[in-house]
Amino acid sequence: MSTHPRQMHLGAFLYPTGHHVAAWRHPQAAADAGINLGHYQHLAHVAERGLFDLIFLADGVGVRGDNVEALSRTAIRYTGQFEPITLLSALSAVTSRIGLVSTISTTYTPPYNIARQMASLDWISGGRAGWNLVTSADDFEAQNFGLDEQLAHAERYARAQEAVDVISRLWDSWEDDAFLRDKESGRYFRPEAFQPINHKGRFFRVRGPLNVPRPPQGRPVIFQAGASEPGKQLAARTADAVFTAAQTVPEGQEYYSDLKRRLPDYGRRPEDIIVMPGVFPVIGATRAEAEDKFARLQDLIHPEVALSHLSPLLGIDLKDHDPHGPVPDVPMSNGHVARQALLVARARRDNLSILELALSMAGARRHWQIVGTPAEITDSLQERFEAGAADGFNIMSPVLPTGLEEFVDTVVPELQRRGLYRTGYTGSTLRDHFGLARPAAHEGFSYAEPEAPHVAYGARA
Amino acid sequence: MSTHPRQMHLGAFLYPTGHHVAAWRHPQAAADAGINLGHYQHLAHVAERGLFDLIFLADGVGVRGDNVEALSRTAIRYTGQFEPITLLSALSAVTSRIGLVSTISTTYTPPYNIARQMASLDWISGGRAGWNLVTSADDFEAQNFGLDEQLAHAERYARAQEAVDVISRLWDSWEDDAFLRDKESGRYFRPEAFQPINHKGRFFRVRGPLNVPRPPQGRPVIFQAGASEPGKQLAARTADAVFTAAQTVPEGQEYYSDLKRRLPDYGRRPEDIIVMPGVFPVIGATRAEAEDKFARLQDLIHPEVALSHLSPLLGIDLKDHDPHGPVPDVPMSNGHVARQALLVARARRDNLSILELALSMAGARRHWQIVGTPAEITDSLQERFEAGAADGFNIMSPVLPTGLEEFVDTVVPELQRRGLYRTGYTGSTLRDHFGLARPAAHEGFSYAEPEAPHVAYGARA
Repeated sequence: MSTHPRQMHLGAFLYPTGHHVAAWRHPQAAADAGINLGHYQHLAHVAERGLFDLIFLADGVGVRGDNVEALSRTAIRYTGQFEPITLLSALSAVTSRIGLVSTISTTYTPPYNIARQMASLDWISGGRAGWNLVTSADDFEAQNFGLDEQLAHAERYARAQEAVDVISRLWDSWEDDAFLRDKESGRYFRPEAFQPINHKGRFFRVRGPLNVPRPPQGRPVIFQAGASEPGKQLAARTADAVFTAAQTVPEGQEYYSDLKRRLPDYGRRPEDIIVMPGVFPVIGATRAEAEDKFARLQDLIHPEVALSHLSPLLGIDLKDHDPHGPVPDVPMSNGHVARQALLVARARRDNLSILELALSMAGARRHWQIVGTPAEITDSLQERFEAGAADGFNIMSPVLPTGLEEFVDTVVPELQRRGLYRTGYTGSTLRDHFGLARPAAHEGFSYAEPEAPHVAYGARA
Repeated sequence: MSTHPRQMHLGAFLYPTGHHVAAWRHPQAAADAGINLGHYQHLAHVAERGLFDLIFLADGVGVRGDNVEALSRTAIRYTGQFEPITLLSALSAVTSRIGLVSTISTTYTPPYNIARQMASLDWISGGRAGWNLVTSADDFEAQNFGLDEQLAHAERYARAQEAVDVISRLWDSWEDDAFLRDKESGRYFRPEAFQPINHKGRFFRVRGPLNVPRPPQGRPVIFQAGASEPGKQLAARTADAVFTAAQTVPEGQEYYSDLKRRLPDYGRRPEDIIVMPGVFPVIGATRAEAEDKFARLQDLIHPEVALSHLSPLLGIDLKDHDPHGPVPDVPMSNGHVARQALLVARARRDNLSILELALSMAGARRHWQIVGTPAEITDSLQERFEAGAADGFNIMSPVLPTGLEEFVDTVVPELQRRGLYRTGYTGSTLRDHFGLARPAAHEGFSYAEPEAPHVAYGARA
């Protein structure tokens, strides 16, 4: 076994039946995976057996879409599944080392509640909690929270920035040694440790302190996935890890170096952030077997489902367009701006029709896809890892649990043989796995000054 | 073993170290109970061994109070402990029958998020979730959510009523047979089952549907504790169970019959709601041993802590009053109106000074206290149960885990001998334990018509 100067981080990205859009129809999929606790317990055990850094749950606060014909044919629109915080809390009880990362939206959950549930999960799990900060770029989610449509992109990111500041300050609102619990003297905590944060900002006003002691990790690990300019700035300032998408090595390198270059502006070092692109690996004993496996999954995709995924990514309704015609120019909208540009460029480059682009995207969505043998997949991961395009990968197995089992049983040993991956856990917290130091309270975080008067949260205006 | 026409329901009310205000200082208490998962796992196992219907977690969304001298001497101000939804989700994994009831505030959590986390907990636990609806009568909580002070009492209850309607409609937003998951035809759900609720009310606008399938219980069990007039009306219209406080048999009878009498107004039967007063049992092998146990606990109370509990209950600041003087007349304020009146009446009746009232309340707070042998405690419970003052009791053990262990080992067998309590679980859901039917979607619930235009939730006004 050779040694390697850096080691790769791995996350298991868990859509219920798998990442492929038609995974739920696969013979090996548990179609009821979304509400099958045993299924998730098994996935967590497999990922922990594979020494993964973490499992990662995406989320949406609502059914995404209103095209009922398409919605009724897919399992990955957050339609009928567990809520992630409750699920990860339950999984914490049957795992001991693996990190537990949940998506929560800063647009639709008050910061006090985010800070509190994440701090509590960190205590329950012994320091394994991570928060994937999202801003919810979807009108259908907005309509579950009193809005007609999502907030503007810039507004969402300004709100997210303030939210992460408030939440970090709440996590830090008790010193690590605040709670004495001294039965003899009758002091439960040091009186001088009681410090309201009194945050008064543009979006939030929060007195504090948090009613949970400082979490075992100090602050739970913060993930972000923003690829737009404000998203990258927010990540550079506040994230411990980013979940990204890159189709090619140069795309991955560009994102990686761009992001790392921004860190010194915030007093941070490039190694203070872990870059984990998504990877969609289709594993076969031979290349032909892997390609056949992928083709069989693609055959299960209904065209309506494929088109319904492309529409919101492009930000236009494709109903008025011939699916066999070329991809139209699209106005850069309020949604995932960076994603739109990448997609149109790709259709132009490969000369794809609307339906061809839709089908090619529907399987892995915008993520990097590798179809091959365990050795080929290991080669590809190693290449990106060594080319400065990634610190690790979020593994988006096409079908679950089989895809994750195959990865753990065939790719992980190959990564270990090459010295690219741990052969045992050396710590017990997610920060330990990532090699990130536990921050002291009030350390290493540049709080932004509040901009303007607050708006009351959850109250009548 | 005699038989009895009705059987008693039991809940385990779990403050971290126990219900007595000074419990954390007791030699048998785990002072770090609030963040000690093993402690809560043990409590859940003991309660399940005792065949309890449920465990019950009170909650506050913030540290309650700003009297740091008093706060720093007590463990029951929600100062440093797990958040209840994450905790119950974790406990669901190590229990199999007992109900899991969490407090959530309709004032500070959006209804979509409440509906979703409760539905998810119900799936994760196999139908054991319960929601204790509260409106958060505390300015310190309000200040964590952008407000200067709590909303007015009537406003909170109007909001709660609308919230419970929205949440119930979200739980019902998918029919039980909506999800086909038919791999062959490719239909994940029946298209006609997709039904947005399109709620537009005074406080909330929610499109729906919920992105969780209809819960195993149909609707998780709803608890309420409101003792005021709007609280009792809300309970009569929507609650499956109420958690109440009554010092005497007549008080308990009055509340019980008053509440049950209101049910037919909403098309409900008296047996559709389970009335569970809180009980604070101090158990000893002899009466003298129990009294001594209680006295030793009372000795651990710091006067500042006792007074700080009385102040908000009375709705006045006691700093300007002689603690050895009589209890002053208090204006009926915006807080727990019904509680204030009961307290003042009691001080007048028993001729108590402020500090005497404070100390007498601080131990069990406003709940019924029984100090005696297992047989005496059983007698008292049986008396109230048979007198039409209760359908069961929420057991508020003075010190945990020992108080709950003692209750399960000594009082439960006596209740069973008298035929007053189950000798085994006969069902697997909380509704089963309560003998409450599983409601069909859209059944047996009188939705209130929205009153006026909505206010956006969590967004800029």
